[in-house]
Amino acid sequence: MANMENPKIKKLTIFGVGLIGGSLALALKKAGYCEKIVGCSRSVDHLQRAIDLGVIDEYTLDPIEAVKGADVVLLAVPIRAIPTILKTIVPHLEENTVVTDAGSAKGSVLRAAKEAYGGVLPANFVAGHPIAGREKSSVEAAIDDLYIDHKVILTPTSETSSEAVLRIKEMWKVTGATVETLDVKQHDDVLAATSHLPHVLAYSFVNSISKSEYGNAVFDYTAGGFESFSRTASSDPVMWRDICLDNKMAILAVLDNFQLDLAALRDSIQDADADAIEKLFADAKATRDGIIKS
Amino acid sequence: MANMENPKIKKLTIFGVGLIGGSLALALKKAGYCEKIVGCSRSVDHLQRAIDLGVIDEYTLDPIEAVKGADVVLLAVPIRAIPTILKTIVPHLEENTVVTDAGSAKGSVLRAAKEAYGGVLPANFVAGHPIAGREKSSVEAAIDDLYIDHKVILTPTSETSSEAVLRIKEMWKVTGATVETLDVKQHDDVLAATSHLPHVLAYSFVNSISKSEYGNAVFDYTAGGFESFSRTASSDPVMWRDICLDNKMAILAVLDNFQLDLAALRDSIQDADADAIEKLFADAKATRDGIIKS
Repeated sequence: MANMENPKIKKLTIFGVGLIGGSLALALKKAGYCEKIVGCSRSVDHLQRAIDLGVIDEYTLDPIEAVKGADVVLLAVPIRAIPTILKTIVPHLEENTVVTDAGSAKGSVLRAAKEAYGGVLPANFVAGHPIAGREKSSVEAAIDDLYIDHKVILTPTSETSSEAVLRIKEMWKVTGATVETLDVKQHDDVLAATSHLPHVLAYSFVNSISKSEYGNAVFDYTAGGFESFSRTASSDPVMWRDICLDNKMAILAVLDNFQLDLAALRDSIQDADADAIEKLFADAKATRDGIIKS
Repeated sequence: MANMENPKIKKLTIFGVGLIGGSLALALKKAGYCEKIVGCSRSVDHLQRAIDLGVIDEYTLDPIEAVKGADVVLLAVPIRAIPTILKTIVPHLEENTVVTDAGSAKGSVLRAAKEAYGGVLPANFVAGHPIAGREKSSVEAAIDDLYIDHKVILTPTSETSSEAVLRIKEMWKVTGATVETLDVKQHDDVLAATSHLPHVLAYSFVNSISKSEYGNAVFDYTAGGFESFSRTASSDPVMWRDICLDNKMAILAVLDNFQLDLAALRDSIQDADADAIEKLFADAKATRDGIIKS
């Protein structure tokens, strides 16, 4: 385990010090893994709060200044902000600086990286995705144990240097996370199914029933089922809008499949086909109970 | 408050002593509201467990014996079992016995009641629906505080006697529940939207993504969003199959609206219409945050 006398990262720069970047910073600080953590965003107030909360050591509003001398740069900004930041910082990165990100879609981030690095997939860019989150996404929500027993997926390409991958892997391991690597397309397909689709459906569900002829009275008799099912609809709308835009093709694919399956279930209900309905419900319950051990 | 020297109900008969019936029994026992609680079902083992857990005082397998001398009869069985039980017991009910139920759909129960009572909506049948539940539905899950701060909806018709409604209302109030009355159609429409639809969608969602080309690996990277969104898919398949059959028309109506709304959102994603997506997500979040205060 690293300690302050022997930090593994001399300078870590975090763009976007919110829940994700802030929680990483806190976990690494606790482990004495970094000599210095520098935050960069467009808001002084925001960065000052991160300083006050002990999440970062320094901050700057200047992206070029921010990456100077950095061993590792983490882009923990909303996914749509990544291309612009990459374009700004790439010409100023030092040769050994490794850049990683925390976006929920990886294909779009790699396309942006390729463009920013002059049309080639860069060796020192490691696309990553910590599978952790809460409805709250501000720096005040950051905690040092957010990643314990959570997975972090890295999606290196054939161009990515194995030293760079190892460096990012080691960094995340310090937080208590399990780090895995996945093919980019598999990552985007799988996350579209298990994470992006439920968000789209929950938003659409709440929106749809809010147009009920009974007005807001429709919500007067909700119970636990409604509460848990709709929870993802309380997530950050801008973040999820961006994920829909960035992982559009994979989301449309799972959404199209879902619409077909839902239409078939609708027909079973219309036909009062008790056996078909029960089989589908029982299969789904068995699947879900097999995944969630609680 | 009632006590054992002055119980308000001399004999309460509960058909189906599971989570719902059992939790009512425990709450009423705690309040000393009943002199005797009798359970009736088709399973001796089940009823014996209810005795062992102190949920009921006596049991019988004979429905006719069960309702003899009962002040109140609660049908807390799966909703599809209600018509048969009503047909069996109605000819043997005493004049002052009030019958109520706990089914999640009320139109179908009232149709069954009308048929069992010889073609007229009965004065002493009060359709009811306690809005409480858990994924577990067995008698072992019964607790005496299940109904505290929960709503119980009664859907009396113009034929229902106000004394009968009052009797059932008072009984539920003792459990800590808030009792409200609703029009039958409004109940079924509203519950279809806020309770039945999320169950249908969660089952369909889990079923749909389980057919992923990645097989079970699709579930390897799930996080909190998946867990809460899919929770209702761990509910009892037979119970929810029956609700789909019993509240078919109302469920189809909200499902059809949902499918149209989801198709529109799909088009917005396809068109990368950032403004439309963000507005829908933000509206849904505002609605949901306004309902769930947590």
